[in-house]
Amino acid sequence: MCRWIAYRGELTALEHYVTEPAHSLISQSINALEATASVNGDGFGLGWYGNHHPEPGLYREIRPAWSDENLRYLCRHLLSRLFFAHVRAATGTAITRANCHPFACGTWMFMHNGFVGNWSRLRRRVEALIPDDLYPSRTGTTDSEAIFLAIMGAGIEHHPLAATEKTLATLTEFVNQNKPADRMRFTAALSNGKDLYAFRYAVNDKANTLYYRESADSIVIVSEPLDADHKKWIAVPENHALIALAGERARIQPLLQVHREAAE
Amino acid sequence: MCRWIAYRGELTALEHYVTEPAHSLISQSINALEATASVNGDGFGLGWYGNHHPEPGLYREIRPAWSDENLRYLCRHLLSRLFFAHVRAATGTAITRANCHPFACGTWMFMHNGFVGNWSRLRRRVEALIPDDLYPSRTGTTDSEAIFLAIMGAGIEHHPLAATEKTLATLTEFVNQNKPADRMRFTAALSNGKDLYAFRYAVNDKANTLYYRESADSIVIVSEPLDADHKKWIAVPENHALIALAGERARIQPLLQVHREAAE
Amino acid sequence: MCRWIAYRGELTALEHYVTEPAHSLISQSINALEATASVNGDGFGLGWYGNHHPEPGLYREIRPAWSDENLRYLCRHLLSRLFFAHVRAATGTAITRANCHPFACGTWMFMHNGFVGNWSRLRRRVEALIPDDLYPSRTGTTDSEAIFLAIMGAGIEHHPLAATEKTLATLTEFVNQNKPADRMRFTAALSNGKDLYAFRYAVNDKANTLYYRESADSIVIVSEPLDADHKKWIAVPENHALIALAGERARIQPLLQVHREAAE
Amino acid sequence: MCRWIAYRGELTALEHYVTEPAHSLISQSINALEATASVNGDGFGLGWYGNHHPEPGLYREIRPAWSDENLRYLCRHLLSRLFFAHVRAATGTAITRANCHPFACGTWMFMHNGFVGNWSRLRRRVEALIPDDLYPSRTGTTDSEAIFLAIMGAGIEHHPLAATEKTLATLTEFVNQNKPADRMRFTAALSNGKDLYAFRYAVNDKANTLYYRESADSIVIVSEPLDADHKKWIAVPENHALIALAGERARIQPLLQVHREAAE
Repeated sequence: MCRWIAYRGELTALEHYVTEPAHSLISQSINALEATASVNGDGFGLGWYGNHHPEPGLYREIRPAWSDENLRYLCRHLLSRLFFAHVRAATGTAITRANCHPFACGTWMFMHNGFVGNWSRLRRRVEALIPDDLYPSRTGTTDSEAIFLAIMGAGIEHHPLAATEKTLATLTEFVNQNKPADRMRFTAALSNGKDLYAFRYAVNDKANTLYYRESADSIVIVSEPLDADHKKWIAVPENHALIALAGERARIQPLLQVHREAAE
Repeated sequence: MCRWIAYRGELTALEHYVTEPAHSLISQSINALEATASVNGDGFGLGWYGNHHPEPGLYREIRPAWSDENLRYLCRHLLSRLFFAHVRAATGTAITRANCHPFACGTWMFMHNGFVGNWSRLRRRVEALIPDDLYPSRTGTTDSEAIFLAIMGAGIEHHPLAATEKTLATLTEFVNQNKPADRMRFTAALSNGKDLYAFRYAVNDKANTLYYRESADSIVIVSEPLDADHKKWIAVPENHALIALAGERARIQPLLQVHREAAE
Repeated sequence: MCRWIAYRGELTALEHYVTEPAHSLISQSINALEATASVNGDGFGLGWYGNHHPEPGLYREIRPAWSDENLRYLCRHLLSRLFFAHVRAATGTAITRANCHPFACGTWMFMHNGFVGNWSRLRRRVEALIPDDLYPSRTGTTDSEAIFLAIMGAGIEHHPLAATEKTLATLTEFVNQNKPADRMRFTAALSNGKDLYAFRYAVNDKANTLYYRESADSIVIVSEPLDADHKKWIAVPENHALIALAGERARIQPLLQVHREAAE
Repeated sequence: MCRWIAYRGELTALEHYVTEPAHSLISQSINALEATASVNGDGFGLGWYGNHHPEPGLYREIRPAWSDENLRYLCRHLLSRLFFAHVRAATGTAITRANCHPFACGTWMFMHNGFVGNWSRLRRRVEALIPDDLYPSRTGTTDSEAIFLAIMGAGIEHHPLAATEKTLATLTEFVNQNKPADRMRFTAALSNGKDLYAFRYAVNDKANTLYYRESADSIVIVSEPLDADHKKWIAVPENHALIALAGERARIQPLLQVHREAAE
């Protein structure tokens, strides 16, 4: 079911969020508390923006995060102002690096926790949403990567929020067209290296948890709190987006209000 | 550019063909002689039929064949009457197990040496040849796997040779439609556990080498000879198929004669 | 803390014990019930004896057993009259194939669940028990492999039980010499391809669980029962050995009675 | 036989040395020109010093360097003033991360190209040179790591050069004591994050190649030149050390003059 963390703020070593906290992402890899699967041992990934390239760096591996010595070294030595980290619990697709999150395409980066119900039946229709020029970026087989590339193709450069909503609306139609309707969960993070977006959405199901913590100069968005001090963490409501534009306070707004009302 | 071997005959340990000969497949993994790439270190695979299941077993790994101790144990202990072995030199797609040969689907098994030129441009069209019910078997991203599933969908059960020719004819059209025309090479093996087929084909290019050796009770088909005694090995001509039906002597026949003449 | 299974009996596919049962070894890899660690995701291994070689075959991998497609194929296609399977929860040493169980040396095979307390302090002394001619077989860094090679060097060919007891007595001295005394747990299986031995032993600690089930023609020895029908499984008492010589019924006898009494 | 590169100078992205040059370390991994083995596909490693920790970071992997997408991202995004990179051709020990170079211990880092002849016979004696308090750092099984830890234990902090010479003298004795005498090659780099040492040494054999290039503010030391402009690269003579102390020009001095003369 996956667990993830997204950070934007002062330049920091990744270890302060990924490996050190009491309930760090690494400890969630072997013992998650708010997930359907308590073990997230099907690979992991880091994605980070640096000062010298607009495109993010990626480190993805198929072994469990808890035993990867490279990961500990990198979290200690990599510094970033905006990074993603993700531990995976696969929902049917292969354990390959290309299926590990985060995914990068140009300057954009994406990671996801959830699933599209009946993926093997819907896969072709979702892949068809990916424009031809982005199809070479389809290097894995997950629903997550296909959704990301569909969002990329729906006009992400100018309207990232609208591109995401448009894609989610299409996916909502897809799962609702099956009889019985399929379920879908989508709790995801998206960034271009400056702005940071997070989404908590579900169709015919309960959405996966999503929390954040904001200070004067940083925001941390997580699947589940990194420590026991739960009151510091604000839960994002179901079917809402968290929008943290560069230089602005984060704000929360409903997702897909029109579409979902129409469906109800 | 890949190297492979296919065997059918008396029950034998794989080691007699995969690891022991002077120029065994393992030695070809680090030092192939007749290939464009002399190093075939981008993963490998074994596929074998046993007595208890109609479906083959697979062992595929992303590390080089020459250093895999598991492979040596398995070649020593696995016995089979029909097996494939393959070492990979990737032509642009990821180093994942799902991209390693052989591929299996139901009782059929396939492996390939070659490429479809401009794969990233043609990929979608080739994937569209895969029927919906077989699309869940598309677990990797190679041209090889897509071609195999296209052949599967073209009527392999009743007419494996016609299904392969039909698919090759379509691929030939695809690469010839580009301006300038793309190249394609296809030297492959196919089996249902009883019959064994091999193909040596190319469009706008020279075909990769293919040899075989037949005795009273066995046939061995290879990318390049396993030993220095070259006169024991018969070269399959370009654009021909080698057909070794169960209980029959192997025969060689032209591939796609009509289509290719029309194109000339 | 590791989980394992040892089988001797009629020729069988490994899948009937490793992957199929309700609480199979694979399900124990992600959800063990009687172990200190419920996740055994730090690699795994199979070892099996065949008809053609006195030495066992090995398949060991560092990824979790639950996601390894090769393992499923091999369990389906490998048949054996005597095999070991093991899922690992590392206790401080690296996740490498050489540190995965079972270990093989000549015709002997060994696997272990437990630890030698304060291993980094005792390692050199235990490694010194390995005779020079066996030291090249020391390819990993675990306590388990070192103990196995020490047992090998203590006269395993003629007196496997005495060699094991002698080694355990030495280890008992080692851990008792530290102030405060260290703990040690040793629940292990040993075989030469014909006879099967299992041990349940601990010093200054509670021994890990060990069960077996015997029928007219087979014996299965496990860390924890493979199904909910617990009354079919007999628990081996602490500090006892289970001895299943070829062609004989299994018997249970105390381990190290003299030594341990002397220490009390 | 391994290939490596060591850099000290202005803060730089590793890619300018590891992946970009015409004959970069990555291209040497599949096609080395001055090595006994042209393929160095048995794993690789990066080690680098940063601004925030005196200990280096490490990234080591067992797959070939040429196909590792993580390596390309890291070489692009990691910046350092002093780093090592290494591609491995194993000489008999396992392909594990712990056997990949560079090795780190405290603030020191080491990498090696060469071998100790008859390693399986000499291993115990070399391991015995490692002091007890450093023995927990012995996580692999290579001659290279054992030699490094022996140098560490021979007084590296105060006299790195003398510690290396003392260790090489002992190794020289070891290989000369066998009848017939064994061979040994040692071309290595050593650093504490400030000073940089390289060694080119052999006993009863020809030493592996070693070159360097120095500018006003940087020094690059390599197994073989990174480009075709060979006159820019200075060969270090056999049995010499290259000493590049922080803030000083590099100098070359004979290694082990006394010991070797005594042996002649």
